[in-house]
Amino acid sequence: MDPVKIIEIKKSVFADNDMDADLLRKELKQRGVFLLNIMSSPGSGKTTTLIRTLNLLKDRIRIAVMEADIDGDVDAVKIREATGIPSIQLHTGGMCHLDAEMTRQGLAHIDLDHTDLVILENVGNLVCPAEFDTGSCANAMILSVPEGDDKPLKYPLMFSVCDLVLINKTDVLQCFDFDMDRCRKYIRKRNPRAKVLPVSARTGDGIDAFAGWLLEKVNNWKQ
Amino acid sequence: MDPVKIIEIKKSVFADNDMDADLLRKELKQRGVFLLNIMSSPGSGKTTTLIRTLNLLKDRIRIAVMEADIDGDVDAVKIREATGIPSIQLHTGGMCHLDAEMTRQGLAHIDLDHTDLVILENVGNLVCPAEFDTGSCANAMILSVPEGDDKPLKYPLMFSVCDLVLINKTDVLQCFDFDMDRCRKYIRKRNPRAKVLPVSARTGDGIDAFAGWLLEKVNNWKQ
Repeated sequence: MDPVKIIEIKKSVFADNDMDADLLRKELKQRGVFLLNIMSSPGSGKTTTLIRTLNLLKDRIRIAVMEADIDGDVDAVKIREATGIPSIQLHTGGMCHLDAEMTRQGLAHIDLDHTDLVILENVGNLVCPAEFDTGSCANAMILSVPEGDDKPLKYPLMFSVCDLVLINKTDVLQCFDFDMDRCRKYIRKRNPRAKVLPVSARTGDGIDAFAGWLLEKVNNWKQ
Repeated sequence: MDPVKIIEIKKSVFADNDMDADLLRKELKQRGVFLLNIMSSPGSGKTTTLIRTLNLLKDRIRIAVMEADIDGDVDAVKIREATGIPSIQLHTGGMCHLDAEMTRQGLAHIDLDHTDLVILENVGNLVCPAEFDTGSCANAMILSVPEGDDKPLKYPLMFSVCDLVLINKTDVLQCFDFDMDRCRKYIRKRNPRAKVLPVSARTGDGIDAFAGWLLEKVNNWKQ
């Protein structure tokens, strides 16, 4: 296998990221490509969740993955090895988030004419990525059980910009004082329209529901 | 009890944060006040670890706590209720880190003439806080077992600026594929001089070692 492609992305030159993000979304709509931006804390299980989900979807739609990290290419390599799906690594040069122009630089390395879904795995961080619209067609975040059910109170913006909240690592619920109902209540407080799905990337529990949600989004986007 | 004091801190006006941080450190040295900056991901157990540790130290040295968060005052209230130690809440106005001037704004609300140790609990984030010197006399970080042993590879700067790495939640080691030796090796790769202490804030395991490390630092600082 060739080495994973590593793209060194540069800081945006656009003053108005929101306008640029809307433009990118329009371009993606015209091309029939759905871009999902996934955010979370470090270590919440983004990559493992993706591997499970992509293996369920890869024979039904054409997928590509962009892994954003400050350094390394561990995640892009993992995704490609475990799913066979084209994956590239974006290096943010120390930056803690991606904006629309940085996302566009990554997309330029993907064959969009033969892709239905692009997954953007954002930098592991519950603060900054929430502040920058990447141009994505939907935002999802992963909160993992060990992080605690109070996170929607402490990182309000992240929860309010997400269409979907996956609550991962439900297989270790018995090891932690995590109250699922309380967590749902806190999420609703920040964002009444967010869909909440408990999953376990390790056992595969709930992953079919996430795959179903994603497939529906991709199909609706193409209409 | 009075409500916890909430300070809305403002963005620094100083162009050179490093110079300002050095200045703050000198001032703290002159006053014999040791400032520890603690960083971690959201949900790694910073507050619980602190409560355990402060209860071991509070009869031996005079302590104050500054809790930095984007919103809320949950942590400052928790610390004060569980330890009786003066705690204030710093609101960063959406910002993902603290710099030296923001730290100084917090310190202005603490009675430094009667304090030996100030703990600064930084914003939960493995990226941005590592980039800004707060003027602290030492940096510590908490990595929790559920986040995974590969984090030093993915967040190199954070590990390289820390004098101490606490590996928390060792009580759930059996629930996760976390290799302590591998993690120590990755940390050494980033920062050979960092001290590594496995702890469990839940059971109290290892907390005495952290308290001992801190006490020694505070005593040396006053000489």
